[in-house]
Amino acid sequence: MKKTKVGIVGYGNLGKGVQAAVKQNPDIELVGVFTRRPVDTVNVNEEGVEVVNVDDTEDYIDKIDVMLLCGGSATDLPVQGPKFAAMFNTVDSYDNHDEIPEYYSEMNEVAEENGNTSAISIGWDPGLFSMNRMLAEAVLPEGNAYTFWGHGVSQGHSDAIRRIDGVKDAVQYTVPKEDAIERVRQGENPELATKKKHTRECYVVAEEGADKEQIKEEIKTMPSYFADYETTVNFVTQEELDTEHSAMPHGGFVMRSGQTGENKDSNQIIEFSLNLDSNPEFTASVLVAYARAIHQLNQEGQTGAKTVFDVPLSYLTHKSSAELRKELL
Amino acid sequence: MKKTKVGIVGYGNLGKGVQAAVKQNPDIELVGVFTRRPVDTVNVNEEGVEVVNVDDTEDYIDKIDVMLLCGGSATDLPVQGPKFAAMFNTVDSYDNHDEIPEYYSEMNEVAEENGNTSAISIGWDPGLFSMNRMLAEAVLPEGNAYTFWGHGVSQGHSDAIRRIDGVKDAVQYTVPKEDAIERVRQGENPELATKKKHTRECYVVAEEGADKEQIKEEIKTMPSYFADYETTVNFVTQEELDTEHSAMPHGGFVMRSGQTGENKDSNQIIEFSLNLDSNPEFTASVLVAYARAIHQLNQEGQTGAKTVFDVPLSYLTHKSSAELRKELL
Repeated sequence: MKKTKVGIVGYGNLGKGVQAAVKQNPDIELVGVFTRRPVDTVNVNEEGVEVVNVDDTEDYIDKIDVMLLCGGSATDLPVQGPKFAAMFNTVDSYDNHDEIPEYYSEMNEVAEENGNTSAISIGWDPGLFSMNRMLAEAVLPEGNAYTFWGHGVSQGHSDAIRRIDGVKDAVQYTVPKEDAIERVRQGENPELATKKKHTRECYVVAEEGADKEQIKEEIKTMPSYFADYETTVNFVTQEELDTEHSAMPHGGFVMRSGQTGENKDSNQIIEFSLNLDSNPEFTASVLVAYARAIHQLNQEGQTGAKTVFDVPLSYLTHKSSAELRKELL
Repeated sequence: MKKTKVGIVGYGNLGKGVQAAVKQNPDIELVGVFTRRPVDTVNVNEEGVEVVNVDDTEDYIDKIDVMLLCGGSATDLPVQGPKFAAMFNTVDSYDNHDEIPEYYSEMNEVAEENGNTSAISIGWDPGLFSMNRMLAEAVLPEGNAYTFWGHGVSQGHSDAIRRIDGVKDAVQYTVPKEDAIERVRQGENPELATKKKHTRECYVVAEEGADKEQIKEEIKTMPSYFADYETTVNFVTQEELDTEHSAMPHGGFVMRSGQTGENKDSNQIIEFSLNLDSNPEFTASVLVAYARAIHQLNQEGQTGAKTVFDVPLSYLTHKSSAELRKELL
């Protein structure tokens, strides 16, 4: 089997999740972890996997098929994405929904110019949830769509808080409103804005001497991430955060309630849900499946930026199309 | 907008569902209904839609972009499929899982030879359920997969019973075993054969003078459809069947319970479920979305047979890729 050789950029929770996910895929091989930290301070606990300073990345252009970008969306990916897409095929989990069109344009241009292929906004939302939103709308054009998230930790939102001056550490929980879920399940087809479906709970460790009121204000007014939501900010000690908020569960569901038939009197409900013990490990597992797909697309000459809408599902598995038809259709 | 012009072959529940679904899609237009019955006995209740005898099909080669084949899998589609794929792009809901590889080969050969594109085995199972089985396995390679169907009427199985000599009419319910569902939900990861997850309940109207024991035996021993299941056969009058068994609800779910992480101690559950008032109307809605996709694929020169694994999701909607990224990613 010719393996897909991958690299990891950024060795946080997501990067470590990718490392573990690669081991579950016999046709994918991890070549190296790329880091901004001094290489001798990073231990990847795996024989044969190199630790490389990002400044030496160019040396690996011929040794890596796909680079998995595991930085955050707030400040890492807007820089890392185009930089790496100029040298490698890439997969990232860019999750700032409002900025996706702009990010797509930039990644598409850089990847195309360099003959590379980049999967952007991969994971579960954006990602698997997006696929189900789109698929359900295409099948049931007349109906209502709902996405609920949580109860769970959002990496993107936690990361956004951690970038604020004076914040030492933070965890953000997205919490679905139970009464809203119930209304949808009862077939009420209610109109619900995102902010009416969820609250955001933030647990923040402030640096010593930091202005807590200022931090609170910055969180609550942050566009896209928090400004539109009922947001609560709780300051805690690092010890409390480590003890009580270190797990990273998440989940949620995408639902469409549509009407079909000559008289539109048949109600049809499509639901997709996730119940995840570890959000970063799950996101990482999705990234790895798309690394396989992106490698194949690039070998076929399909360059530029791709989203979950563009990639046929058969590209995500190492199984042949004949196997898929026999075993899974 | 340049519309996709479609035809319907077979005007039963599925064909009527397609007719209604087309009206919900502004970029798709129904040209005609093709039938084996005398054309003046078929009323489609829609202005501008022709009723055509299947013998005159060839006259429509230049007038129709995609033909939706709405016959049953037991005897209609094995004949209709290749016949129409030689003349048109086609979409069908061939659902005899065991025979899919062979059906694919035949459809692929005929479609390719004639420069046509054929989507086979479209609907929800095979179809949306298959997509979710495949996607979940690609994302979580280590884990267990489960598909449960029902409680609901299976068109394919009801049709198979109706083809038996001496059967006037029939309805088959697929019923999931509640205790099996519960074991999966509790995270037990049990090994469950399909026949351990469901029972099949048949309500059959026999022709006058028919040998009921013979019918019962033929149903219970029918390969692929019933032979492996706990099957009960109840004979009822036509009136009872019409009164008590005329609705066509269905549903079910596809679930994968997988383990991720360095120590595989994170359990991750992916679930996709359907709760359908009308199975044929829903299947029809999926067929129509794939008609759009198949037309586009053919225009791009991608000929031969395709399954849900081969078609990028973006082809299923009339929305542009830019709209999808902005609205649904």
